[in-house]
Amino acid sequence: MNRSLRQVKALAFDVFGTVVDWRGSLIKEGRKLGRRKGIKVDWTAFADAWRAGYRPAMDRVRRGELGWTRIDDLHRMILDGLIREFGLTSLSEDERVDLNRAWHRLAPWKDAVAGVKRLKKRYVLATMSNGNVALLVNMAKRAGLPWDVVLSAEIARHYKPDPEAYLSVPRLLGIEPGEVLMVAAHKDDLDGAARAGLRTAFVARPLEFGDPALKDVVPEPRFDANAKNFLDLARQLGC
Amino acid sequence: MNRSLRQVKALAFDVFGTVVDWRGSLIKEGRKLGRRKGIKVDWTAFADAWRAGYRPAMDRVRRGELGWTRIDDLHRMILDGLIREFGLTSLSEDERVDLNRAWHRLAPWKDAVAGVKRLKKRYVLATMSNGNVALLVNMAKRAGLPWDVVLSAEIARHYKPDPEAYLSVPRLLGIEPGEVLMVAAHKDDLDGAARAGLRTAFVARPLEFGDPALKDVVPEPRFDANAKNFLDLARQLGC
Repeated sequence: MNRSLRQVKALAFDVFGTVVDWRGSLIKEGRKLGRRKGIKVDWTAFADAWRAGYRPAMDRVRRGELGWTRIDDLHRMILDGLIREFGLTSLSEDERVDLNRAWHRLAPWKDAVAGVKRLKKRYVLATMSNGNVALLVNMAKRAGLPWDVVLSAEIARHYKPDPEAYLSVPRLLGIEPGEVLMVAAHKDDLDGAARAGLRTAFVARPLEFGDPALKDVVPEPRFDANAKNFLDLARQLGC
Repeated sequence: MNRSLRQVKALAFDVFGTVVDWRGSLIKEGRKLGRRKGIKVDWTAFADAWRAGYRPAMDRVRRGELGWTRIDDLHRMILDGLIREFGLTSLSEDERVDLNRAWHRLAPWKDAVAGVKRLKKRYVLATMSNGNVALLVNMAKRAGLPWDVVLSAEIARHYKPDPEAYLSVPRLLGIEPGEVLMVAAHKDDLDGAARAGLRTAFVARPLEFGDPALKDVVPEPRFDANAKNFLDLARQLGC
């Protein structure tokens, strides 16, 4: 094991794209809704557009243009904009609320639950997601993801990649930043964690955007670990 | 089931005394340390004195005399005062740190883990303890307490019975105060929860202070439930 990894006591997981397949799950939810309502929508484009609104919305909060707003509410603001664009105006308010909750029902990548269970035997496992606590708790309960502790940007009241978000993990766990390994499928997330003093593990999720050509999964020597999936990460960490 | 309990979606557990036997665990840890160091101490009196310092220390934080201080640090401040009183000056700094960590190693009452597992099938289970997050996470991992989410006064930055502490549970879980059932072995804790609009379940823990004569375990009609232990609570909630 890499020397820098020997001091690690806790793993902090990014969630959207790293633990769960947000895109595949949203497309599935959309198609089910479309069949039920008898509406024809390009649900793939819809899922991509919804996700595309996420970073700009968070950045408005990060720059202080918008007061603290949790992801559930940002998702709803973006959804409200997509309703007209995608011809979804026939959805009732209850159906819109339920569609917005699709983010609470995202399904894990197939190695995720088994990998988390293996890693849990040796490490304290936390989430460190921009998703709000309720979303992460509902998702974990449904998917059987046995986190030791659900931490979130909502608790830090700072979205990643603000250092306050990453640093809330060692602060709340009573350990040093260098004792926390951030696990993510996004290089900018890991770079943010590294700037805050955390260790980094990159996990390739080539299908996050459907087409592997759209995702940079090249291992980087600047990260403390580069893994194919959670089982590969567990193996590299000796779990 | 009581009508007020039908809307409950999440249970919030007090921890010290309700889930774990702080007194028995501290006495055991003390005796082990005493044998190792060859020192004679009344560990029962020591445990009671340590716990007795807890409420006044928290109240200093609640009144604003002391800035936000987590329980690990309050426990250490109290311990430092007891070191001389109980003739423990031969303990090294490492031994004092480890003794303070005894609070992370408290053992659950014998029905607690089985009860939590049954309740977890139906409800979101949170802690709502004055203990800090690291303490609660370490304790849960060691004892096998599968919380869905570890919430703490440390996250709310308000100690119970401040309403902000109780209200952080529905706020972070995205539900209403009346959808949260506070579970505690202390009537003042439940009265604080009720003032904040939460539902209340009293759990008798007659041996919390060693002698049943020292603990008020009389059921109270003002609580939404009164249970003998967690298995009895699970039964009353239809789990």
